[in-house]
Amino acid sequence: MNKIYFKDLNEHIGKEIIIEGFVDSIRDLQYVQFIVIRDTTGKVQVTIEKNDTNKKLNKIVSELTCESTIKVIGTLYQNEKVKLNKMELIPNDIIVTSKCALELPLNYKDMSSSSIDTRLNYRFLDLRNEKNLLMFKVQTCLINSMREYVINNDFIEIHTPKIISAASESGSEVFELNYFNRKAYLAQSPQFYKQMAMCGGLEKVFEVAPAFRAENSNSYRHATEFTSFDIEMSYIESLEELMDFEENLFIYSLTKIKEKYGNEIKNLFNVDVVIPTKPFPRIKLEELYKILEKEYNFKMNYEDVGDMNSESEKLAYKYIKEQYGHEFVFITDFSAKKRAFYHKRENGVPQGADLIWKGCEITTLALREHRYEILCNQAKEKGLSNDVKFYLEFFKYGCPPHGGFALGVDRITMLLLETESLKETMFIFRGPNRIEP
Amino acid sequence: MNKIYFKDLNEHIGKEIIIEGFVDSIRDLQYVQFIVIRDTTGKVQVTIEKNDTNKKLNKIVSELTCESTIKVIGTLYQNEKVKLNKMELIPNDIIVTSKCALELPLNYKDMSSSSIDTRLNYRFLDLRNEKNLLMFKVQTCLINSMREYVINNDFIEIHTPKIISAASESGSEVFELNYFNRKAYLAQSPQFYKQMAMCGGLEKVFEVAPAFRAENSNSYRHATEFTSFDIEMSYIESLEELMDFEENLFIYSLTKIKEKYGNEIKNLFNVDVVIPTKPFPRIKLEELYKILEKEYNFKMNYEDVGDMNSESEKLAYKYIKEQYGHEFVFITDFSAKKRAFYHKRENGVPQGADLIWKGCEITTLALREHRYEILCNQAKEKGLSNDVKFYLEFFKYGCPPHGGFALGVDRITMLLLETESLKETMFIFRGPNRIEP
Repeated sequence: MNKIYFKDLNEHIGKEIIIEGFVDSIRDLQYVQFIVIRDTTGKVQVTIEKNDTNKKLNKIVSELTCESTIKVIGTLYQNEKVKLNKMELIPNDIIVTSKCALELPLNYKDMSSSSIDTRLNYRFLDLRNEKNLLMFKVQTCLINSMREYVINNDFIEIHTPKIISAASESGSEVFELNYFNRKAYLAQSPQFYKQMAMCGGLEKVFEVAPAFRAENSNSYRHATEFTSFDIEMSYIESLEELMDFEENLFIYSLTKIKEKYGNEIKNLFNVDVVIPTKPFPRIKLEELYKILEKEYNFKMNYEDVGDMNSESEKLAYKYIKEQYGHEFVFITDFSAKKRAFYHKRENGVPQGADLIWKGCEITTLALREHRYEILCNQAKEKGLSNDVKFYLEFFKYGCPPHGGFALGVDRITMLLLETESLKETMFIFRGPNRIEP
Repeated sequence: MNKIYFKDLNEHIGKEIIIEGFVDSIRDLQYVQFIVIRDTTGKVQVTIEKNDTNKKLNKIVSELTCESTIKVIGTLYQNEKVKLNKMELIPNDIIVTSKCALELPLNYKDMSSSSIDTRLNYRFLDLRNEKNLLMFKVQTCLINSMREYVINNDFIEIHTPKIISAASESGSEVFELNYFNRKAYLAQSPQFYKQMAMCGGLEKVFEVAPAFRAENSNSYRHATEFTSFDIEMSYIESLEELMDFEENLFIYSLTKIKEKYGNEIKNLFNVDVVIPTKPFPRIKLEELYKILEKEYNFKMNYEDVGDMNSESEKLAYKYIKEQYGHEFVFITDFSAKKRAFYHKRENGVPQGADLIWKGCEITTLALREHRYEILCNQAKEKGLSNDVKFYLEFFKYGCPPHGGFALGVDRITMLLLETESLKETMFIFRGPNRIEP
């Protein structure tokens, strides 16, 4: 762990050091050889004169292939003539720690030269692209700052089971598995378990974990397995409190990202990280319909009324952006018919919202119905009873009023960096037609 | 989110405040009623005199059940006569936010009054036990401080797929699932994917995620689904570096836990959190066998030679504890026959170790074989080739020398708090005979 990071090389000018990295490029000229090595923080040039003393080194370099990994022992010099950081390493020894085959199956440096499917087939090479490296650094910062925010607010981390005995909620779109010769399923969300934590008095919990959806959908924003950041908190009484909390969470996290990676994101993705102002705009669904019809002559399909769809999400963003200069908008007052049975209602209206960022839904927030009788009735009304029986039990023995939401980490990364699809922002994408590598 | 935490009540003496929590106890006496309310940080007494002005409140309290949740608006007074924190809340109003059924199916306050299975059946009530609350706070601190340590060391967080197309490694003990009418499996570990990240140049990665083992084992330390903290890092050349890193990780994390929860752990679990000294003792396997035979007349079973088993782990701890006063020990120099094909070997000896804490294995660390030809040979030697073909591909195109390890978070929590089994330290336990709740 004493590796010298290339970003810190300035501190080592004039010293003999050991560096390691991937061979980024090789130039083997008549009198001199140049190697550029890269690590996760930068690049550096190694210069080897061709002469008798360097015979052994010259041979190593002439047989070296790009994308091999090497270890170089040598002295680092300042040299104004060197374009790359104005420094070069003059080596005493070069050790090839792994040799790359001559031909790469993917030109990872030029993303546009391959289809996304080829790139995913060779994800282990595709990851070497500088945009991907930055993307995972940014995603690390995103998740970590969100976690930091909730832990600073005394949240408890939970790890709920992904193997469950009953197909939760709707019962559709779950993967079935063989669990010691009985049927089991993969959890679509930790919803029931994070509410169990509320009944169990843990008050405020979060989880970052995979969620699974057996949905045969091939859109740019769906995956069969994705990382969900789940939040649930007790003694919440209004949707306003919940929206306020999510606003703070985003502002905290985006501020951290902008500070740390704002410039790099601008350089590589040409995207400005915008810190949103509070409060985020809020619109009731019916009001939004009226606006979209008036402004864009848009009418919802009959079967979608009471809900949003991808087109209305895009237009809502367009309108909000033009009207308020804001990237986020909360849509409230959905139809009870279109919302889960466990959403709390007031005068029949679910106390929940969808948060839309840059035209794409990223969260459903809601207060939960915590009163046993009302919850049982709402489950019955949706035709659910037996499947959710174990869940309904939780509420018989006291449960604080509570609410929460979930965020798709990969989707947020996609929107933050404005990539074309989720396929690029997941470490390994999983869709109906893709289960490899 | 403006909830007043009971630990902060001192700041509110003399003021009118609103508090919320579970009803911990009720005493309805001739002239006065007492309610004790609890939240995640403490308890407070509410005192209601029986008189005409309080008629409405008196009625509410007389109908109140323990474990209901209430909201109380009132004035907080210092009162030296009150045993509990020398303060009491005199209410103007009490609102019952959820009512608990009269009889609880579990006496959660006395863990010894129910079997572990009954406790797990009613986990939503069992969680209310103060030991469980503390346990999840401690686990949150454990995982978070480990994450903090690796993120401070520039690790990148990854989220690898849990649904995989080939049964990895040994091929046995994996759950099979139906993935759009083709066979798929649940990942036993992110091993191959975290190594993919090394080939992809991400250098240092970690993941905290569920891992799945279809192992029909009912021991105190096995679960079919558990939370794994995985680490992998590049440019590591000796096992010593890896052990050193893990030592630092534990020292960092245990120090944080001791600072924050040391006293509470002592009070509720009667366990001293010990910060280990560096370096942790290390013993070669053969040497350990000799010691165990000499000291305890212990001989390994023939089929286990070259490896450890639960008995030798316990005795190794006993010896180390007596000899060095240390809770940890690294066992090195296992037999290649007993280790995974991807472990790097030197003179035939796998460059790996098991870390044993308080008599239980918590990590297998190892350098990985990163050289394509050698890796292929080692896979072939174990009879693996086709199943791991996609994995072998990663190493054709350059890969830094690397190594890593995984920690079972639940197992570490069990050892830290010295609970009887994993069943208690998991939010929801999963074993061959348990898939509920």
